[in-house]
Amino acid sequence: MTSDFSRRISGVQPSAIREIFKVLADPGVISLAAGSPSPETFPAAELAAVSSELFAQRAGAALQYGITEGYGPLREQTAARLRDKYRVGGPDDDLIITTGGQQGLDLTAKVLLNEGDTVLCEEPSFIGALNCLRATGARLVGVPADEGGMDMEALARALKSAVRPKLIYTIPTFQNPGGTTLSAPRREQMLALARQYNVLVAEDDPYFELRYTGQPVPALKSLDEEGRVIYLGSYSKTISPGLRLGFVCAHRDIVSKMIVAKQVSDVHTNLFFQMAVSLYLDRYDFDAHIAACRALYAGRLDRMYAHVNAWGDRVSCLRPEGGLFLWCRLPRGYDGAALCRLAGARKVAAVPGSAFAVREDEISPGFRLNFSLPTDEQITQGMILLTQALEELLETTKN
Amino acid sequence: MTSDFSRRISGVQPSAIREIFKVLADPGVISLAAGSPSPETFPAAELAAVSSELFAQRAGAALQYGITEGYGPLREQTAARLRDKYRVGGPDDDLIITTGGQQGLDLTAKVLLNEGDTVLCEEPSFIGALNCLRATGARLVGVPADEGGMDMEALARALKSAVRPKLIYTIPTFQNPGGTTLSAPRREQMLALARQYNVLVAEDDPYFELRYTGQPVPALKSLDEEGRVIYLGSYSKTISPGLRLGFVCAHRDIVSKMIVAKQVSDVHTNLFFQMAVSLYLDRYDFDAHIAACRALYAGRLDRMYAHVNAWGDRVSCLRPEGGLFLWCRLPRGYDGAALCRLAGARKVAAVPGSAFAVREDEISPGFRLNFSLPTDEQITQGMILLTQALEELLETTKN
Repeated sequence: MTSDFSRRISGVQPSAIREIFKVLADPGVISLAAGSPSPETFPAAELAAVSSELFAQRAGAALQYGITEGYGPLREQTAARLRDKYRVGGPDDDLIITTGGQQGLDLTAKVLLNEGDTVLCEEPSFIGALNCLRATGARLVGVPADEGGMDMEALARALKSAVRPKLIYTIPTFQNPGGTTLSAPRREQMLALARQYNVLVAEDDPYFELRYTGQPVPALKSLDEEGRVIYLGSYSKTISPGLRLGFVCAHRDIVSKMIVAKQVSDVHTNLFFQMAVSLYLDRYDFDAHIAACRALYAGRLDRMYAHVNAWGDRVSCLRPEGGLFLWCRLPRGYDGAALCRLAGARKVAAVPGSAFAVREDEISPGFRLNFSLPTDEQITQGMILLTQALEELLETTKN
Repeated sequence: MTSDFSRRISGVQPSAIREIFKVLADPGVISLAAGSPSPETFPAAELAAVSSELFAQRAGAALQYGITEGYGPLREQTAARLRDKYRVGGPDDDLIITTGGQQGLDLTAKVLLNEGDTVLCEEPSFIGALNCLRATGARLVGVPADEGGMDMEALARALKSAVRPKLIYTIPTFQNPGGTTLSAPRREQMLALARQYNVLVAEDDPYFELRYTGQPVPALKSLDEEGRVIYLGSYSKTISPGLRLGFVCAHRDIVSKMIVAKQVSDVHTNLFFQMAVSLYLDRYDFDAHIAACRALYAGRLDRMYAHVNAWGDRVSCLRPEGGLFLWCRLPRGYDGAALCRLAGARKVAAVPGSAFAVREDEISPGFRLNFSLPTDEQITQGMILLTQALEELLETTKN
């Protein structure tokens, strides 16, 4: 094989998260490194019941080709829930079902970005999104965030100096990895800046149903009167990630282009489970299911945060109001990756902050902990071992 | 919304096939326009049984995130079948599970093509593939084909004059829409030309299991000693298209890049049905199932071809040895789209040849008929109506 790969794909480095897989391959390792929901939350019995029914009554349709924009009833149910509960989606908007939330961003990139366009995003941010944007040949510019989310003055400066700015990519609610939520006033400011610089906003919102404390903040899309916000959602964290069911709500002109892009990407999303989830939403109490997920995760967050709290001032960590992650920062000069290596030696996995860096060679004092997947026992045991690793790092490494 | 779309997506026109959907929306219409397998062939009872088992015993794993390259046992079963039955895949090759065969081509395009690279393909060819390549910003160059498949002298000339040639995209076996199979000597010539001009070959082979008559021709990939052929396969035509399960067998360096590209596209393919199909292949006789599909489709091809044969010299149509389609050509000067419009008025749908043209504005005397989806009765009735439309066209339109 003597041919070259495309520039776009050559720009994507194997993720730093891959190193973690080596640690995770050991079945004795406690993983605080995942981004996965707990299998206890999967509505398996309910999906089994509706799947049986589909096989018995509608197998011919459920196993056949479907239309690219998605199964009609599921599109309508999803759009109705977004509109009625979150005021997301207006008369000019449309909704497309995607193969997981990730494909929503991939389609966004495909229909909007030319090589060399600039995308602005929180620094740090979700590695899977950053790599998706890199694979389009986009230039990424990281904008710092504090406990109120992305810094709007820094965003204004970044927009002003950006080369061909095209898109703001943001996880405004329970950001990954930061755990922060963009405040309501900053949401208005972000939309005003988007208007001023004529850029679009991709609002990645996979955790919106998973708030444990505090007051809901309106979705950017619910404040958008110009069709400027592309809302990316997913059933991965509330039903099942293995099914790969996501959705995009955006202006119909954008969704219309996304349908063309999806047609050539994978024709349509697995139809059987689009139909199964549609039946599930119809037959069962989805809000009660989500309330049970919230209760489970809120307890796990409490349990994990108690350990982090006991670390005192040595590690800074904002307590998030929702989502799946704690974002911790070591004192200045310490390397999160060094802590993760020491933790790995003690059979606990965490993700070094460098995995979320917009500049990939950056050393980060941060590390990310996940509290949704480990059981209560794993959280307790894992945090004891992680605390030992932390003490080892702080004692043996001089700042 | 005031932003521009990407150049890549702007280059993709809504497919001519979309017009057919208007005709198909009428439930009284007989469709000879599909590319779908018959729902009678879906192994619904078997998939129901293995799905029940998965829900009962392994729901936690089947509904959770999976790895990007695909479910291990399904990868092994697929690779073993390709290797043992078709000599496809060697020690330097690897296999990735894709979200349908379409994603295999999309990943090929993502990892190989830069904007402006040239891809050479049969003229006419599968619209979904052509649009996928256009969406990467590739230049398409069509190469004429005859009953022995792509013309190798024309391919040599096209390669010689192409700007940055990078890839030959071919459906060598039961081509869509042409129905032709590239002869064994031409397969060797194609590989020699690929070597001479240092291009890769994407061998799109969704119909390889569906041969009804004649002798098998070796897959290009089975003749490939340099890792130059990317083999694109699918379970859509043999198990179910709605599940979106395809695969790519290629040199491990290429597959390794495809894994990076798939990670950012949709993370992984629906895991539940990767596991279900793996169980299905394990428990049931897949070869017997395929033999039953072949018997069904061979009968339908016979039935449809008898009508075409009765048209005599007025329409040229090669009888294919496999696949799902008949490709018919009207006398010189007649427009296949005109016939399809007359057929639509009589409530029969067929696809005009222009839908498969590499140059999108081209008028084509061709039209494509599908014999896998319509029942025997629909074939008979549909072909009677189509024959009336044909006679109307030939009588009223003077050449």
